[in-house]
Amino acid sequence: MNEKERARRPGGRSARVAAQVHQAVTELISERGYGNFTVGEVAARAGVADSSIYRRWGSLETLLSEVALTRLNTQSPMPDTGTLSGDLRTYAAQVAREITGPDGPAVLHLAIALSSSGERGRQAGESLRAERTRQLQGMLDRARDRGEPALDAFDVLDHILAPMYIRVLFGTELTPEYVDGLVDRML
Amino acid sequence: MNEKERARRPGGRSARVAAQVHQAVTELISERGYGNFTVGEVAARAGVADSSIYRRWGSLETLLSEVALTRLNTQSPMPDTGTLSGDLRTYAAQVAREITGPDGPAVLHLAIALSSSGERGRQAGESLRAERTRQLQGMLDRARDRGEPALDAFDVLDHILAPMYIRVLFGTELTPEYVDGLVDRML
Repeated sequence: MNEKERARRPGGRSARVAAQVHQAVTELISERGYGNFTVGEVAARAGVADSSIYRRWGSLETLLSEVALTRLNTQSPMPDTGTLSGDLRTYAAQVAREITGPDGPAVLHLAIALSSSGERGRQAGESLRAERTRQLQGMLDRARDRGEPALDAFDVLDHILAPMYIRVLFGTELTPEYVDGLVDRML
Repeated sequence: MNEKERARRPGGRSARVAAQVHQAVTELISERGYGNFTVGEVAARAGVADSSIYRRWGSLETLLSEVALTRLNTQSPMPDTGTLSGDLRTYAAQVAREITGPDGPAVLHLAIALSSSGERGRQAGESLRAERTRQLQGMLDRARDRGEPALDAFDVLDHILAPMYIRVLFGTELTPEYVDGLVDRML
């Protein structure tokens, strides 16, 4: 069931199960890090049957990607500051904070693990990235509609996000000056 | 005479052991992928004792990083075409070929696994990257000495290598046009 369908049936049994399962995943992530638990452990923690999780999400990968998207949308919503420069700076700082936080490398490892864990994982990773890219392009399109330069979400991915991701994956520090420098270079 | 000095003596017993161990690692990598084997399996394949590997390399991570560096230096030596543009295009195309080849994602996963596998892995990954960065800076410095623009190896890492790495890690295709576009943008 997707977000829209759930939104149409607030308070239903499905919605309660989804909330319990998301909560269980969030707790297991904070206790053990992304990927260090099984569907059975999520089910036990949420007080639901394993089969309920498989029926609704199909796989642990799909569930993890849904929880990751919910987390990103809550903790790092796309900014709307009124200027392209303000939006990009705020967004880059949010992403930097997210990926250097306690779960940050784990979130990146999850994205990579999904992409290399078979067709189902690849699709789950792809749908997570597609949704965040769509949101990012929306932020850039608002700037263009205000008469500011038109940027492409993939340029932001390549020249602001990718350098930050690689530095974190390689264990290098991200300073605010470095992050601002990536934005300045793009602007 | 320390381990390093002994390893440098061509034809010595140390050099033979190193060659056998590198060969065993290369075979295991091509059969199973980076990281899917133990020191014991490398030792058995190379016909040496586990303790010889631990004594010389200290850990599987250090050995893997040495083999990865040897492989990169052989298969993707820094180009010297006589122009900055030619060097960067050749280098970017080599890296693209390397990371999209059969072992490419595995090499990137190794670099990332090293960085997140404790202090010894972090140091091995760091020394691998430091050596390649030093070589890359040498290529850029030759261009500067010819009167071409002076570039920094970290700019090449951030804006040519990082976007390619992230696309490969996320399972996206790298086209030659895309790779050339990254170089054009930098030049």
